[in-house]
Amino acid sequence: MSDCRRLVLEEFERFMPREQRARSQLYDLIYDYPLREAKALRPALCIAVCRALGAHLGTVLPSAAVLELYHNAFLVHDDVEDGSERRRSGPTLHRLHGVPIAVNVGDAMLALALEPLLENTRILTLGKALGILECIARMARESAEGQALELEMIRNRTWTLTDQEYFRLVHKKTSHYSFIAPARIGAIAGNASASQLAALTRFGTWMGVAFQIQDDLLNLAGKEARVGKEIDGDLWEGKHTLILAHALRNASEAERQEAGAILGKARPTEQHRGGDADAVIAGLRQAGRISHTLAAELREALGVPDESTRLKTARDVAFLKGLIVHYGSLEYARDTAARWARRARRSLEAMNWLRASTHRDFLFHLTDFVVARDN
Amino acid sequence: MSDCRRLVLEEFERFMPREQRARSQLYDLIYDYPLREAKALRPALCIAVCRALGAHLGTVLPSAAVLELYHNAFLVHDDVEDGSERRRSGPTLHRLHGVPIAVNVGDAMLALALEPLLENTRILTLGKALGILECIARMARESAEGQALELEMIRNRTWTLTDQEYFRLVHKKTSHYSFIAPARIGAIAGNASASQLAALTRFGTWMGVAFQIQDDLLNLAGKEARVGKEIDGDLWEGKHTLILAHALRNASEAERQEAGAILGKARPTEQHRGGDADAVIAGLRQAGRISHTLAAELREALGVPDESTRLKTARDVAFLKGLIVHYGSLEYARDTAARWARRARRSLEAMNWLRASTHRDFLFHLTDFVVARDN
Repeated sequence: MSDCRRLVLEEFERFMPREQRARSQLYDLIYDYPLREAKALRPALCIAVCRALGAHLGTVLPSAAVLELYHNAFLVHDDVEDGSERRRSGPTLHRLHGVPIAVNVGDAMLALALEPLLENTRILTLGKALGILECIARMARESAEGQALELEMIRNRTWTLTDQEYFRLVHKKTSHYSFIAPARIGAIAGNASASQLAALTRFGTWMGVAFQIQDDLLNLAGKEARVGKEIDGDLWEGKHTLILAHALRNASEAERQEAGAILGKARPTEQHRGGDADAVIAGLRQAGRISHTLAAELREALGVPDESTRLKTARDVAFLKGLIVHYGSLEYARDTAARWARRARRSLEAMNWLRASTHRDFLFHLTDFVVARDN
Repeated sequence: MSDCRRLVLEEFERFMPREQRARSQLYDLIYDYPLREAKALRPALCIAVCRALGAHLGTVLPSAAVLELYHNAFLVHDDVEDGSERRRSGPTLHRLHGVPIAVNVGDAMLALALEPLLENTRILTLGKALGILECIARMARESAEGQALELEMIRNRTWTLTDQEYFRLVHKKTSHYSFIAPARIGAIAGNASASQLAALTRFGTWMGVAFQIQDDLLNLAGKEARVGKEIDGDLWEGKHTLILAHALRNASEAERQEAGAILGKARPTEQHRGGDADAVIAGLRQAGRISHTLAAELREALGVPDESTRLKTARDVAFLKGLIVHYGSLEYARDTAARWARRARRSLEAMNWLRASTHRDFLFHLTDFVVARDN
C-alpha cells in the first residue's frame, strides 16, 4: 500500500492547477490530510482489482487517485460534522483553521476530483469513463445519505440500533466509498462483466462492515499513537457503533436510561473548556464567595445550559465504557467483524476469474487486514 | 424568470432518487432553499443563451437545473462559512438544523448534481456533454478558490482592497458560477463556436461584477423584506465589498485604524447573545455587587475574550456605515456597477449571431436587471 500511496501523491500533482497554487493557501490546505500518514487503502484496492483482471496500471491510476481525494474531502467534512478533535495524529483541519476554511477546503477537493475523471475519456473507452463517473456519483450520494442517517439518529436521540440498522448505516456511510466504489471502478477499468461487478459489489459490502466494526473497536481499544485519533472519541461524539448498540441492548432498563441521558449531552469543545460557566459558578458558590441569589442570577445571565443540554464529562464516558466492558460488547463486535471478513474472503475465493498474481494475493491479504489492523 | 423557476423545480423532481426520499429527512432539507422564493437567474440566463442560438429547451434544461442545484449547494455552505443568519426571508439552514446537517445537505446536493450531467450524453453529442461537465468542474473550482481568497483576507485582517483586487475576488466567487458557467453551458448546448464562447465569457465576467456590487449595495441600503437577508449583514460578517474598500481608501488614518479594529472582531452569535459574560460581569461590577478581584477572576475563569477577540457591537457597525455614507461610497459603487453593466450591454450588442427573439431580449433585460433589481 505504501507504493500505491506514493503513486497517488504523484498523481495529485497533476490534478492541481499550477498557476493557482502559488497564489492561494488553499492548495496547501488541500494537501494537509493527504500528506499526513495514511494507508491509501482505497486506491490500493482499486488498482489491485483492475490488475488482477489483467489491465494495466495506467488505465486506472487517475481514478484511484480521485478516490483518495474524495476520501480526504469526506474526512475534512466529516470531522466538522462529528466535531472530531484529531485525525491522523494531528488536530483536525477545522481545529487548525476554523470551520469556514475547512468546509471550503473540502468543497475545493470535490471540485478538483472532477477534471481527472473527465480526462478518463482519453485513456479509456467512453462507456468505461462514463461508468466510472456514474460510480463516483452514486458513491457521493450514498455517503451523504449515510451521514444524514447518522446525524438524524443523533438529533432524534436514537441510540438503540438493531444489528441490521447498524449494517444499513455502515453500508451507506462506509462500504460504498471505501470498498464498493474502489472495487467497481477497478473492475470497470479492468473490463469486468456485469456479474463480476455484482460479485465485487457484494465483496465490498461485507468488507465495509468488517472494516467499520474494526474502526469502532480501535477507537475504543486501540493505541492513540497508532490510530491517530483520540481514544474513546466515538463515545464523546455519540457515534453509533455496533459495540454501543450491543451494550445498550444487554443493559438493564436503568442503565439504558442513564446511557441515553449521557449520549444526549453534547461533547465539550475548546470554547466550553475555556469557560465552563456552570463549574465556575458552582465553585464560587461552594467556596461561599457568592450568594445563592447571585449564583442563580449569573447562571441566568450567562445562559448556562439547563440539565437537558449539559455537556458530557469524563465520568459519563467512563460509565458508557463500563457498560461496554461489562456486557462483552468488544468481544461481540470482534466476532461479528471476523464473520463478515470471512464471508468476504469466501466470496473472493469464488472469483476464479481473478488471475493468480500479487494483486489477487493482495485482495486476500486485505480480508485479513480489515480486522487485524491496528490503525 | 418565474416560468423558468417552475421548469427547474419540475426537473429537480427527476433528479431525486425516489426510493430514498421517504426514508430520509435529507431530501426535505435539500428542497428547503430551492423552495424559498428565488429568482432562478442562473438557469434563466443559461436557457436564454441556448435558445437565442436557436437550440431547443430540452437540450439545455437538465444542465440549467443542475446550475440552480449547485447555486443552492453553494448558498448552504457559504452561509455556514460566512456565519450568515438569514437567507431568502428565513433563518439559514445551519441556524435551523446546525452546522453538521447543513454541511452534509450541501454535499448531498453536489452529489445529486452529477447524475443529470452524465445523462446529457443521451440528449447531446458526447463532445457537448463533456464540455458542459468541464465547465461545471471549472466553475466549482473557481468558486472554491474565490471563497478561499475571501476567507484568507478575513483571517489575515486584510481590509484595504484596490478595485482590481475586488474584481479578481468577485470574478472567482461570483462571475464564474452566476454568469460565466450559465452562459457558456447554454452556448455549448446551442452549438456555439469558440469565439462565441469567448465573447459570452467576457459578458459573464462583467455581468458578475455588476451583479455583485448591486448585491453589496442591497445588503446595506435595501429593504430586508425584499432582500431576504439582514440589512448590514455584510458589515457584521466583515465581507469585502467595493463599498467598504472605497470608504477605507478615503478615510483618515485614524478612521481606517478604528475600522480595521472593528472589522477584526467576530460577530456575536446566538450563543454569545445568550450569555455575553463580559457585559454581565461589567454590569455586576458597576452596580457594586462584585469586587474588582472577583470580576477579574470571573473574566479569567469564564474565558472572556480579551480586547483583540472582542465581538462587534451595533455601535461598531454604525461607525462603519457612517464612513460609507460620509465618503460617498454607495454612490461610487452604484456608478461602478452601472459602468460594468453598460460594458456587458455593449458586448451583447456586438453579438450579432444571437437571433432576434424574446430570449435575446431577455439577455438585454438582464443587463438592466443586475443593477436595477431590489432583491
